[in-house]
Amino acid sequence: MKADAPVVLGEPKGYTAQKAGVKRGIAILDFILRLVGFIGTLSSAIMMATTNETLPFFTQFIRFRAEYNDLPTFTFFVVANAAVSAYFLLSLPLSIFNILRSSAKNSRIILIIFDTGMLALLTAGSSAGAAIVYLAHRGNTKANWLAICQQFNSFCERISGSLIGSYVGVTVFIVLILLSASALARR
Amino acid sequence: MKADAPVVLGEPKGYTAQKAGVKRGIAILDFILRLVGFIGTLSSAIMMATTNETLPFFTQFIRFRAEYNDLPTFTFFVVANAAVSAYFLLSLPLSIFNILRSSAKNSRIILIIFDTGMLALLTAGSSAGAAIVYLAHRGNTKANWLAICQQFNSFCERISGSLIGSYVGVTVFIVLILLSASALARR
Repeated sequence: MKADAPVVLGEPKGYTAQKAGVKRGIAILDFILRLVGFIGTLSSAIMMATTNETLPFFTQFIRFRAEYNDLPTFTFFVVANAAVSAYFLLSLPLSIFNILRSSAKNSRIILIIFDTGMLALLTAGSSAGAAIVYLAHRGNTKANWLAICQQFNSFCERISGSLIGSYVGVTVFIVLILLSASALARR
Repeated sequence: MKADAPVVLGEPKGYTAQKAGVKRGIAILDFILRLVGFIGTLSSAIMMATTNETLPFFTQFIRFRAEYNDLPTFTFFVVANAAVSAYFLLSLPLSIFNILRSSAKNSRIILIIFDTGMLALLTAGSSAGAAIVYLAHRGNTKANWLAICQQFNSFCERISGSLIGSYVGVTVFIVLILLSASALARR
Protein backbone atom coordinates (compact mmCIF):
# COMPACT_ATOMS: atom_id res chain seq x y z
CA MET A 1 0.00 0.00 0.00
CA LYS A 2 3.05 2.25 0.16
CA ALA A 3 2.63 3.39 -3.45
CA ASP A 4 -0.85 4.72 -2.66
CA ALA A 5 0.24 6.90 0.24
CA PRO A 6 0.88 10.13 -1.72
CA VAL A 7 -2.53 9.75 -3.37
CA VAL A 8 -4.16 9.41 0.04
CA LEU A 9 -2.36 12.55 1.24
CA GLY A 10 -3.69 14.42 -1.76
CA GLU A 11 -7.33 13.53 -1.06
CA PRO A 12 -9.81 16.38 -0.62
CA LYS A 13 -10.59 17.07 3.03
CA GLY A 14 -14.33 16.35 2.61
CA TYR A 15 -13.59 12.75 1.62
CA THR A 16 -11.60 12.15 4.82
CA ALA A 17 -14.40 13.62 6.96
CA GLN A 18 -16.95 11.44 5.17
CA LYS A 19 -14.83 8.34 5.81
CA ALA A 20 -14.60 9.21 9.53
CA GLY A 21 -18.38 9.70 9.55
CA VAL A 22 -18.97 6.22 8.14
CA LYS A 23 -16.67 4.76 10.80
CA ARG A 24 -18.51 6.64 13.55
CA GLY A 25 -21.80 5.31 12.15
CA ILE A 26 -20.42 1.76 12.30
CA ALA A 27 -19.28 2.34 15.91
CA ILE A 28 -22.73 3.61 16.95
CA LEU A 29 -24.41 0.63 15.25
CA ASP A 30 -21.93 -1.59 17.13
CA PHE A 31 -23.03 -0.03 20.43
CA ILE A 32 -26.76 -0.48 19.68
CA LEU A 33 -26.24 -4.11 18.61
CA ARG A 34 -24.39 -4.86 21.85
CA LEU A 35 -27.32 -3.46 23.83
CA VAL A 36 -29.75 -5.64 21.84
CA GLY A 37 -27.54 -8.70 22.37
CA PHE A 38 -27.26 -7.94 26.10
CA ILE A 39 -31.04 -7.77 26.51
CA GLY A 40 -31.59 -10.90 24.39
CA THR A 41 -29.10 -13.16 26.15
CA LEU A 42 -29.95 -11.86 29.64
CA SER A 43 -33.67 -12.48 29.12
CA SER A 44 -32.87 -15.93 27.71
CA ALA A 45 -30.79 -16.83 30.77
CA ILE A 46 -33.45 -15.56 33.20
CA MET A 47 -36.33 -17.16 31.29
CA MET A 48 -34.62 -20.56 31.26
CA ALA A 49 -33.36 -20.36 34.85
CA THR A 50 -36.75 -19.51 36.33
CA THR A 51 -38.63 -22.26 34.48
CA ASN A 52 -40.26 -24.97 36.52
CA GLU A 53 -43.56 -26.77 36.41
CA THR A 54 -45.25 -29.02 38.94
CA LEU A 55 -47.98 -31.23 37.57
CA PRO A 56 -51.35 -31.08 39.39
CA PHE A 57 -51.42 -34.84 40.03
CA PHE A 58 -49.05 -36.90 42.18
CA THR A 59 -48.65 -40.37 43.59
CA GLN A 60 -47.85 -41.22 47.18
CA PHE A 61 -44.10 -41.10 46.51
CA ILE A 62 -43.53 -38.83 43.54
CA ARG A 63 -44.53 -35.28 42.71
CA PHE A 64 -44.04 -34.72 39.00
CA ARG A 65 -41.94 -31.64 38.73
CA ALA A 66 -39.76 -30.34 35.88
CA GLU A 67 -36.97 -27.81 36.36
CA TYR A 68 -34.38 -26.55 33.90
CA ASN A 69 -31.49 -28.15 35.83
CA ASP A 70 -32.97 -31.62 35.47
CA LEU A 71 -31.20 -31.57 32.11
CA PRO A 72 -27.46 -30.67 32.31
CA THR A 73 -27.60 -29.17 28.81
CA PHE A 74 -29.99 -26.48 30.02
CA THR A 75 -27.59 -25.64 32.85
CA PHE A 76 -24.91 -25.11 30.19
CA PHE A 77 -27.40 -23.00 28.22
CA VAL A 78 -28.02 -20.73 31.23
CA VAL A 79 -24.30 -20.43 32.02
CA ALA A 80 -23.42 -19.61 28.39
CA ASN A 81 -26.16 -16.99 28.11
CA ALA A 82 -25.30 -15.41 31.47
CA ALA A 83 -21.58 -15.28 30.58
CA VAL A 84 -22.29 -13.74 27.18
CA SER A 85 -24.69 -11.12 28.56
CA ALA A 86 -22.03 -10.17 31.14
CA TYR A 87 -19.52 -9.87 28.29
CA PHE A 88 -21.92 -7.66 26.31
CA LEU A 89 -22.22 -5.36 29.33
CA LEU A 90 -18.44 -5.24 29.84
CA SER A 91 -17.79 -4.53 26.15
CA LEU A 92 -20.05 -1.44 26.13
CA PRO A 93 -17.33 0.95 27.45
CA LEU A 94 -14.94 -0.25 24.73
CA SER A 95 -17.69 0.30 22.17
CA ILE A 96 -18.20 3.88 23.43
CA PHE A 97 -14.44 4.41 23.16
CA ASN A 98 -14.68 3.34 19.49
CA ILE A 99 -17.43 5.92 18.89
CA LEU A 100 -15.31 8.70 20.39
CA ARG A 101 -12.07 7.70 18.66
CA SER A 102 -13.07 6.36 15.26
CA SER A 103 -9.48 5.68 14.19
CA ALA A 104 -8.79 3.32 17.12
CA LYS A 105 -7.30 0.04 15.93
CA ASN A 106 -6.26 -2.05 18.93
CA SER A 107 -9.62 -1.77 20.69
CA ARG A 108 -11.34 -3.14 17.56
CA ILE A 109 -8.95 -6.11 17.35
CA ILE A 110 -9.56 -6.90 21.04
CA LEU A 111 -13.31 -6.79 20.39
CA ILE A 112 -13.03 -9.10 17.34
CA ILE A 113 -10.99 -11.64 19.33
CA PHE A 114 -13.44 -11.78 22.24
CA ASP A 115 -16.51 -11.55 19.97
CA THR A 116 -15.34 -14.63 18.06
CA GLY A 117 -14.79 -16.64 21.25
CA MET A 118 -18.14 -15.58 22.66
CA LEU A 119 -19.88 -16.35 19.35
CA ALA A 120 -18.58 -19.91 19.61
CA LEU A 121 -19.66 -20.21 23.28
CA LEU A 122 -23.16 -18.82 22.68
CA THR A 123 -23.75 -20.88 19.51
CA ALA A 124 -22.68 -24.00 21.39
CA GLY A 125 -25.09 -23.27 24.25
CA SER A 126 -27.99 -22.35 21.97
CA SER A 127 -27.76 -25.31 19.63
CA ALA A 128 -27.17 -27.85 22.42
CA GLY A 129 -30.26 -26.40 24.10
CA ALA A 130 -32.20 -26.53 20.82
CA ALA A 131 -31.24 -30.19 20.30
CA ILE A 132 -32.68 -31.11 23.72
CA VAL A 133 -35.79 -28.93 23.26
CA TYR A 134 -36.41 -30.70 19.96
CA LEU A 135 -36.09 -34.04 21.74
CA ALA A 136 -38.47 -32.88 24.48
CA HIS A 137 -41.05 -31.93 21.86
CA ARG A 138 -40.74 -34.83 19.44
CA GLY A 139 -39.02 -37.59 21.41
CA ASN A 140 -37.28 -40.38 19.53
CA THR A 141 -38.96 -43.70 18.93
CA LYS A 142 -35.78 -45.49 17.82
CA ALA A 143 -33.94 -44.66 21.06
CA ASN A 144 -37.17 -45.10 23.04
CA TRP A 145 -37.04 -41.55 24.40
CA LEU A 146 -40.55 -40.22 25.00
CA ALA A 147 -41.62 -36.63 24.32
CA ILE A 148 -41.89 -35.10 27.79
CA CYS A 149 -43.74 -32.08 26.38
CA GLN A 150 -46.96 -34.08 26.35
CA GLN A 151 -46.97 -33.82 30.14
CA PHE A 152 -45.02 -30.64 30.80
CA ASN A 153 -46.74 -28.18 28.50
CA SER A 154 -45.92 -24.79 29.95
CA PHE A 155 -42.38 -25.95 30.82
CA CYS A 156 -41.80 -26.75 27.16
CA GLU A 157 -43.22 -23.44 25.99
CA ARG A 158 -40.86 -21.55 28.29
CA ILE A 159 -37.74 -23.47 27.25
CA SER A 160 -38.62 -23.10 23.56
CA GLY A 161 -39.20 -19.37 24.00
CA SER A 162 -35.91 -18.85 25.77
CA LEU A 163 -34.06 -20.10 22.68
CA ILE A 164 -35.15 -16.96 20.78
CA GLY A 165 -33.10 -14.45 22.78
CA SER A 166 -30.11 -16.74 22.55
CA TYR A 167 -30.27 -16.87 18.75
CA VAL A 168 -30.73 -13.09 18.64
CA GLY A 169 -27.38 -12.96 20.46
CA VAL A 170 -25.76 -15.27 17.89
CA THR A 171 -27.01 -13.09 15.02
CA VAL A 172 -25.76 -9.95 16.79
CA PHE A 173 -22.27 -11.45 17.16
CA ILE A 174 -22.06 -12.39 13.46
CA VAL A 175 -23.05 -8.85 12.42
CA LEU A 176 -20.64 -7.35 14.99
CA ILE A 177 -17.65 -9.31 13.67
CA LEU A 178 -18.45 -8.28 10.08
CA LEU A 179 -18.80 -4.62 11.14
CA SER A 180 -15.48 -4.69 13.03
CA ALA A 181 -13.72 -6.36 10.10
CA SER A 182 -15.04 -3.76 7.65
CA ALA A 183 -14.08 -0.94 10.04
CA LEU A 184 -10.55 -2.36 10.30
CA ALA A 185 -10.30 -2.65 6.51
CA ARG A 186 -11.47 0.94 6.03
CA ARG A 187 -8.48 2.49 7.78
CA MET B 1 -3.92 7.75 10.35
CA LYS B 2 -3.27 10.40 7.70
CA ALA B 3 -0.72 12.18 9.88
CA ASP B 4 1.43 9.04 10.00
CA ALA B 5 1.71 8.67 6.25
CA PRO B 6 4.93 10.71 5.72
CA VAL B 7 6.59 8.74 8.52
CA VAL B 8 5.59 5.49 6.78
CA LEU B 9 7.06 6.78 3.52
CA GLY B 10 10.31 7.53 5.31
CA GLU B 11 10.70 4.02 6.71
CA PRO B 12 13.80 2.01 5.85
CA LYS B 13 13.18 -0.53 3.10
CA GLY B 14 14.11 -3.49 5.30
CA TYR B 15 11.23 -2.77 7.65
CA THR B 16 8.69 -2.88 4.82
CA ALA B 17 10.09 -6.18 3.54
CA GLN B 18 9.94 -7.61 7.06
CA LYS B 19 6.28 -6.54 7.41
CA ALA B 20 5.42 -8.23 4.08
CA GLY B 21 7.24 -11.33 5.31
CA VAL B 22 5.10 -11.51 8.45
CA LYS B 23 1.95 -11.18 6.34
CA ARG B 24 3.12 -13.94 4.01
CA GLY B 25 3.81 -16.12 7.07
CA ILE B 26 0.26 -15.50 8.31
CA ALA B 27 -1.12 -16.38 4.86
CA ILE B 28 0.84 -19.66 4.75
CA LEU B 29 -0.36 -20.54 8.28
CA ASP B 30 -3.90 -19.73 7.08
CA PHE B 31 -3.49 -22.22 4.21
CA ILE B 32 -2.16 -25.01 6.49
CA LEU B 33 -4.96 -24.45 9.02
CA ARG B 34 -7.57 -24.71 6.26
CA LEU B 35 -6.08 -28.05 5.20
CA VAL B 36 -6.21 -29.30 8.81
CA GLY B 37 -9.80 -28.12 9.15
CA PHE B 38 -10.75 -29.78 5.86
CA ILE B 39 -9.35 -33.13 6.95
CA GLY B 40 -10.92 -32.85 10.42
CA THR B 41 -14.46 -32.00 9.32
CA LEU B 42 -14.44 -34.40 6.37
CA SER B 43 -13.35 -37.31 8.54
CA SER B 44 -15.99 -36.34 11.13
CA ALA B 45 -18.72 -36.34 8.50
CA ILE B 46 -17.61 -39.69 7.04
CA MET B 47 -17.12 -41.28 10.47
CA MET B 48 -20.60 -40.27 11.62
CA ALA B 49 -22.33 -41.08 8.33
CA THR B 50 -20.93 -44.61 8.10
CA THR B 51 -21.77 -45.53 11.69
CA ASN B 52 -24.22 -48.34 12.24
CA GLU B 53 -24.46 -51.27 14.58
CA THR B 54 -26.70 -54.31 14.53
CA LEU B 55 -27.01 -56.16 17.81
CA PRO B 56 -26.38 -59.92 17.69
CA PHE B 57 -29.77 -60.78 19.20
CA PHE B 58 -33.22 -60.14 17.77
CA THR B 59 -36.87 -60.96 18.40
CA GLN B 60 -39.33 -62.25 15.84
CA PHE B 61 -40.32 -58.74 14.81
CA ILE B 62 -37.45 -56.44 15.61
CA ARG B 63 -33.78 -56.45 14.74
CA PHE B 64 -31.98 -54.05 17.04
CA ARG B 65 -30.07 -51.75 14.78
CA ALA B 66 -28.66 -48.27 15.36
CA GLU B 67 -27.79 -45.85 12.56
CA TYR B 68 -26.76 -42.22 12.70
CA ASN B 69 -29.97 -41.04 10.98
CA ASP B 70 -32.16 -42.52 13.68
CA LEU B 71 -31.46 -39.24 15.44
CA PRO B 72 -32.19 -36.10 13.36
CA THR B 73 -29.50 -34.16 15.24
CA PHE B 74 -26.81 -36.48 13.86
CA THR B 75 -28.12 -35.87 10.34
CA PHE B 76 -27.64 -32.15 10.98
CA PHE B 77 -24.16 -32.92 12.33
CA VAL B 78 -23.22 -34.75 9.12
CA VAL B 79 -24.68 -32.01 6.90
CA ALA B 80 -22.90 -29.25 8.83
CA ASN B 81 -19.55 -31.06 8.73
CA ALA B 82 -19.88 -31.92 5.03
CA ALA B 83 -20.83 -28.32 4.15
CA VAL B 84 -17.93 -26.91 6.17
CA SER B 85 -15.38 -29.32 4.68
CA ALA B 86 -16.60 -28.35 1.19
CA TYR B 87 -16.17 -24.70 2.19
CA PHE B 88 -12.63 -25.37 3.43
CA LEU B 89 -11.78 -26.94 0.08
CA LEU B 90 -13.30 -24.04 -1.88
CA SER B 91 -11.49 -21.45 0.25
CA LEU B 92 -8.04 -22.94 -0.48
CA PRO B 93 -7.60 -21.08 -3.81
CA LEU B 94 -8.43 -17.77 -2.10
CA SER B 95 -5.92 -18.64 0.62
CA ILE B 96 -3.23 -19.30 -2.03
CA PHE B 97 -4.09 -15.94 -3.60
CA ASN B 98 -3.43 -14.32 -0.20
CA ILE B 99 0.00 -15.97 -0.03
CA LEU B 100 0.93 -14.65 -3.49
CA ARG B 101 -0.42 -11.14 -2.94
CA SER B 102 0.16 -10.34 0.71
CA SER B 103 -1.34 -6.84 0.45
CA ALA B 104 -4.74 -8.13 -0.75
CA LYS B 105 -7.58 -6.65 1.31
CA ASN B 106 -10.92 -7.63 -0.22
CA SER B 107 -10.11 -11.34 -0.36
CA ARG B 108 -9.38 -11.28 3.39
CA ILE B 109 -12.67 -9.56 4.18
CA ILE B 110 -14.57 -12.12 2.08
CA LEU B 111 -12.80 -14.90 3.99
CA ILE B 112 -13.64 -13.33 7.40
CA ILE B 113 -17.33 -13.00 6.44
CA PHE B 114 -17.67 -16.63 5.32
CA ASP B 115 -15.42 -17.96 8.11
CA THR B 116 -17.68 -16.36 10.71
CA GLY B 117 -20.84 -17.84 9.19
CA MET B 118 -19.23 -21.27 8.89
CA LEU B 119 -17.91 -21.06 12.48
CA ALA B 120 -21.50 -20.55 13.65
CA LEU B 121 -22.78 -23.45 11.51
CA LEU B 122 -20.07 -25.89 12.59
CA THR B 123 -20.31 -24.96 16.30
CA ALA B 124 -24.09 -25.45 16.13
CA GLY B 125 -23.69 -28.89 14.55
CA SER B 126 -20.92 -30.00 16.92
CA SER B 127 -22.57 -28.93 20.14
CA ALA B 128 -26.01 -30.23 19.18
CA GLY B 129 -24.30 -33.55 18.38
CA ALA B 130 -22.38 -33.43 21.67
CA ALA B 131 -25.61 -32.82 23.61
CA ILE B 132 -27.19 -35.95 22.11
CA VAL B 133 -24.00 -38.03 22.52
CA TYR B 134 -23.95 -37.04 26.20
CA LEU B 135 -27.58 -38.13 26.50
CA ALA B 136 -26.81 -41.43 24.76
CA HIS B 137 -23.99 -42.09 27.24
CA ARG B 138 -25.59 -40.92 30.48
CA GLY B 139 -29.31 -40.87 29.77
CA ASN B 140 -31.56 -38.75 31.98
CA THR B 141 -33.49 -40.26 34.87
CA LYS B 142 -35.75 -37.24 35.38
CA ALA B 143 -37.00 -37.30 31.79
CA ASN B 144 -36.95 -41.13 31.81
CA TRP B 145 -34.55 -41.29 28.85
CA LEU B 146 -32.36 -44.37 29.07
CA ALA B 147 -28.68 -44.44 28.12
CA ILE B 148 -28.67 -46.33 24.81
CA CYS B 149 -24.90 -46.76 24.98
CA GLN B 150 -25.34 -49.69 27.34
CA GLN B 151 -26.61 -51.68 24.36
CA PHE B 152 -24.95 -50.01 21.41
CA ASN B 153 -21.35 -49.91 22.52
CA SER B 154 -19.37 -49.56 19.31
CA PHE B 155 -22.01 -47.21 17.87
CA CYS B 156 -21.47 -44.89 20.81
CA GLU B 157 -17.70 -45.03 20.49
CA ARG B 158 -17.91 -44.03 16.83
CA ILE B 159 -20.28 -41.09 17.39
CA SER B 160 -18.18 -39.85 20.31
CA GLY B 161 -15.01 -40.08 18.23
CA SER B 162 -16.51 -38.21 15.31
CA LEU B 163 -17.02 -35.17 17.58
CA ILE B 164 -13.23 -34.69 17.75
CA GLY B 165 -12.72 -33.72 14.10
CA SER B 166 -15.64 -31.39 14.32
CA TYR B 167 -14.20 -29.51 17.29
CA VAL B 168 -10.82 -29.36 15.54
CA GLY B 169 -12.70 -27.51 12.78
CA VAL B 170 -14.22 -25.07 15.31
CA THR B 171 -10.78 -24.32 16.79
CA VAL B 172 -9.33 -23.82 13.29
CA PHE B 173 -12.05 -21.28 12.44
CA ILE B 174 -11.45 -19.26 15.61
CA VAL B 175 -7.70 -19.08 14.90
CA LEU B 176 -8.36 -18.24 11.21
CA ILE B 177 -10.61 -15.29 12.08
CA LEU B 178 -8.02 -13.93 14.53
CA LEU B 179 -5.25 -14.33 11.92
CA SER B 180 -7.31 -12.54 9.24
CA ALA B 181 -8.20 -9.72 11.63
CA SER B 182 -4.57 -9.21 12.62
CA ALA B 183 -3.51 -9.31 8.93
CA LEU B 184 -6.11 -6.66 8.10
CA ALA B 185 -4.96 -4.50 10.99
CA ARG B 186 -1.30 -4.78 9.90
CA ARG B 187 -1.84 -3.01 6.58
